[in-house]
Amino acid sequence: MASRPAIDWLPALVWARHYRLKDLRNDAIAAIVVAVMLIPQALGLALVAGVPAQAGLYAAMSGLTIYALFGSSRCLSVGPVAVLSLMTAAALSRLPLGTSAEYAAAALTLSFITGAILLLAGFFRLGFVANFIPRPVLVAFVTASAILIALSQMDLLFNVPVSGSNALAMFASLIANLTGAHLPTLALGLTAIAFLVICKLRLARLFLRMGFRRGAARSLSRAGPIALAALAILLSWQFNLEEVGVEVLGEIPSGLPAFTLPDFSPALLGSLFLSALPLAVVCYVESISVAQALAVRRRQTISPNQELTGLGAANLVTSFSGGMPVAGGFSRSLVNFEAGAATPAAGFYAAVIIALVVLFLTPVLYWLPRVCLAAVILVAVYALLDFSIFAKSWRHSRSDFFAVAITLIVTLTVGAEAGIGAGVLTAVLMHLYKTSRPHVAIVGRVPGTEHFRNVRHYQVETSDKILSVRIDEALYFPNTRYLESLLFRLVAERPGLKHVVLMCPAVNDIDLSALETLENINDVLADSGISLHLSEVKVPIMNILKGTRFFTRLSGRTYLSQNQAFEDLRGD
Amino acid sequence: MASRPAIDWLPALVWARHYRLKDLRNDAIAAIVVAVMLIPQALGLALVAGVPAQAGLYAAMSGLTIYALFGSSRCLSVGPVAVLSLMTAAALSRLPLGTSAEYAAAALTLSFITGAILLLAGFFRLGFVANFIPRPVLVAFVTASAILIALSQMDLLFNVPVSGSNALAMFASLIANLTGAHLPTLALGLTAIAFLVICKLRLARLFLRMGFRRGAARSLSRAGPIALAALAILLSWQFNLEEVGVEVLGEIPSGLPAFTLPDFSPALLGSLFLSALPLAVVCYVESISVAQALAVRRRQTISPNQELTGLGAANLVTSFSGGMPVAGGFSRSLVNFEAGAATPAAGFYAAVIIALVVLFLTPVLYWLPRVCLAAVILVAVYALLDFSIFAKSWRHSRSDFFAVAITLIVTLTVGAEAGIGAGVLTAVLMHLYKTSRPHVAIVGRVPGTEHFRNVRHYQVETSDKILSVRIDEALYFPNTRYLESLLFRLVAERPGLKHVVLMCPAVNDIDLSALETLENINDVLADSGISLHLSEVKVPIMNILKGTRFFTRLSGRTYLSQNQAFEDLRGD
Repeated sequence: MASRPAIDWLPALVWARHYRLKDLRNDAIAAIVVAVMLIPQALGLALVAGVPAQAGLYAAMSGLTIYALFGSSRCLSVGPVAVLSLMTAAALSRLPLGTSAEYAAAALTLSFITGAILLLAGFFRLGFVANFIPRPVLVAFVTASAILIALSQMDLLFNVPVSGSNALAMFASLIANLTGAHLPTLALGLTAIAFLVICKLRLARLFLRMGFRRGAARSLSRAGPIALAALAILLSWQFNLEEVGVEVLGEIPSGLPAFTLPDFSPALLGSLFLSALPLAVVCYVESISVAQALAVRRRQTISPNQELTGLGAANLVTSFSGGMPVAGGFSRSLVNFEAGAATPAAGFYAAVIIALVVLFLTPVLYWLPRVCLAAVILVAVYALLDFSIFAKSWRHSRSDFFAVAITLIVTLTVGAEAGIGAGVLTAVLMHLYKTSRPHVAIVGRVPGTEHFRNVRHYQVETSDKILSVRIDEALYFPNTRYLESLLFRLVAERPGLKHVVLMCPAVNDIDLSALETLENINDVLADSGISLHLSEVKVPIMNILKGTRFFTRLSGRTYLSQNQAFEDLRGD
Repeated sequence: MASRPAIDWLPALVWARHYRLKDLRNDAIAAIVVAVMLIPQALGLALVAGVPAQAGLYAAMSGLTIYALFGSSRCLSVGPVAVLSLMTAAALSRLPLGTSAEYAAAALTLSFITGAILLLAGFFRLGFVANFIPRPVLVAFVTASAILIALSQMDLLFNVPVSGSNALAMFASLIANLTGAHLPTLALGLTAIAFLVICKLRLARLFLRMGFRRGAARSLSRAGPIALAALAILLSWQFNLEEVGVEVLGEIPSGLPAFTLPDFSPALLGSLFLSALPLAVVCYVESISVAQALAVRRRQTISPNQELTGLGAANLVTSFSGGMPVAGGFSRSLVNFEAGAATPAAGFYAAVIIALVVLFLTPVLYWLPRVCLAAVILVAVYALLDFSIFAKSWRHSRSDFFAVAITLIVTLTVGAEAGIGAGVLTAVLMHLYKTSRPHVAIVGRVPGTEHFRNVRHYQVETSDKILSVRIDEALYFPNTRYLESLLFRLVAERPGLKHVVLMCPAVNDIDLSALETLENINDVLADSGISLHLSEVKVPIMNILKGTRFFTRLSGRTYLSQNQAFEDLRGD
């Protein structure tokens, strides 16, 4: 690591050198839009995670700043995100934590371990691991998480206790306690939701009609949540809603976050490590998906391993500044991108704006009704729901659908970590199962050509002496036995057979299990006076075969093309 | 199940109908050879498992009889086998079992659960699961198990206590206790080993020289262990070796096994279930490997799911007749095969011979020195060692070698169950990792032909406007992101590019993740004025693509051959 130039691990050195006034203007505008959107979300997500509200703001500040220095994406907006907040709450709820101070300290520990895992993964260049989470599984996971988050907000919306470790239990608990709902809170919450929905659907159009340009109208329409917060604070303060029983945010310490120390007790580190692992994976996968999608639109590139470093550093630092786990948020990054953020400095400016709020506006935030934050989160997670993935995956293949269904069901009934794990496992098992019964075609020559096609789909020339079999799969342990029995069955059905040709243009690998099986097939066929031949073996596979016992004992020949094999053996 | 004809699940009905006198003669000879070989082994393997010696004989009797009825292999000889005995001992040693009666009852429970799992797997036709254990992993597992078994026999050989849950600990414990070795026992044991080795290496040749025919000489040479037992019993009785401190087998109940009931306490069932699962897998995989290898030599077929039924029934019944877990043994089945067993009736006759021993010879077995049984086991497991798998797998590929090494190391240091699990997991992960970075070739046309080859290996025609990329792997979630960034990098390096052609003859699958990535690649390229084309897509893959959003939005065309694509686009 020491020998790498600073520029490699500090991408900020690249863009900072060419920073221009125009960039400053663009970045500043994007920063305002993002900060305005982020402040109510960060407060709400802190409540989702179960940590003090200010932890959300602190996490946003450190996340934005540190990622601006180390991240490789130009638009990713790092801070508290819904799925991580949910996973944080789930991880901490399993621990025997007495006071809320202990709980907040444990959240810092979780951030710390998550950051350390990400940094280590970056150091060991493990960025490729994210590729092992199939997109449909990720979509199903995010959808299920959104449902869980929505359910977790019901206690704020109805002001009743909602408990339970899975979706059904939470729903049942909500229904059971529904009679105790606090109507003023509920009314305020529903009004807030209606306000936010209208802002989301109509505000941009309204601003357009008022003569704003398209981009500006869009940016202004993001102000819905902050406008809601302002209005609600005014209302809450004016009519002292706290006395009516509407819960307000309450005391928030004023001033910048102090240096905090995560709880480093070995027992806590041990019990949180297994929770931090999926947290780190989800943090990375969600962030890189967003970063990649946005980079592609501007023809920029991002470095997976540098992303690990940026996200790791952000989580590590947030754990020392009273925050909570952070990642690149989807909607926020998109907003940053659309508002025209030119460099990661936009993130830093947004952090400065949040710092100003923390410095001067906490007395005002006291009056903010918590139910309004729940409304912000509910409207935000609604955008995460994507049920179309069911129909889509069903149409595509049963195995994709199965992975999607398992992910959703397990996430809802067991939890987020188990859900994503089960989804990946299902996808891997389905893949193994599919490749264990590969597509195999008996082929013949299309008359007048040199092309060989499946005898079932085409009128082709064949010979009773030659069995030509095209194998459409890598030959490796899950399918060797299947192929062996299939071949022996095909041979047994054909008396008078003299040659078996394995046509291998789609054989992408041959492992040792397969090689020994081929050796056995060759020997058994030779005993019956049948020669085994290969055709159209690719160069990398030929390199594997050369010099092996199988290849030296091969009873037949190796042909460059199936047509050569057919011509040569037919006359035999 | 009810609707299947009896003949489907009772293969005995098939061969019994055509049973001839010649079969009887062949089967009877094979039965004698197998029984003679099996009796000392079964006694020794019972001691390996830690159950009373007679349990080995009872298990052999019920295993042979029941498998003869339900099994689909004509030669498989079912009874106690080394690896299962080792796994049984390991599973039971983890339980808090006080008396040896409790221990024996728990072994019956283990047999019962193993049998039940196998029967269920047969019912649900899960025979294919065995394919997921790579051959090299199985070889490494058996080799490591043989080492563990050999170490477990050292306490009998030296007559000192040897303890420890892994190979190193056992070895250390042996060394530490070596000074307490009982020299008469050791001398007898070493003599026995020497006798067995000489029998194994020389006896067949001696009988040949004495004028016996080749087959007969070979069969007679299997009598080494039983001859050893006879001589040792004579010696032990004549000189009362028990008084010198040589441990003898001792009291064995006379008569056929009584009906025994496994211990069905829920706690025991629960704690043994997880041990029974790998036991069932190993039982099945070892048996089917042997059965398949022998069936191929005689052009017979075996049915994987019927094997599950046969092995399951054998284990279930053995649990009610005082036995221990059973499987098809490698060397015994080979001996059965070579001795000319014509039908599974040979197994039944062997069981009858063992029954005669149990009925009439137990007073004689009292005098058999235990160290002689250890000698039999040591010489038998020596044949299981196969270290050549290391060199073989190293030469073939790092991923095969890695799986082999992990299997051996984990089996020796943690245990048999963990070892085989770790081996399979490693093989799967290595496969996923390999396919996540697939082989991709930029191709051009070999002048004067219609063949397209890698530009790096061949002098080929290309065009600056066309990038032709051959992908040698299924497109699925582990490699979608990799391919996407690779393609974008290749495109970025080529200004003036107008067409990208993906050549797909080796693309064996496209999952939903890959489809969405392709859609994205298509859109991004289209934005830059570059068309995406496909060539040589196989029929099953074309069926997947048809009607998808990707296919309807595809900016380019689909060509049957790469040459057509090249000709068509070059003039563009």
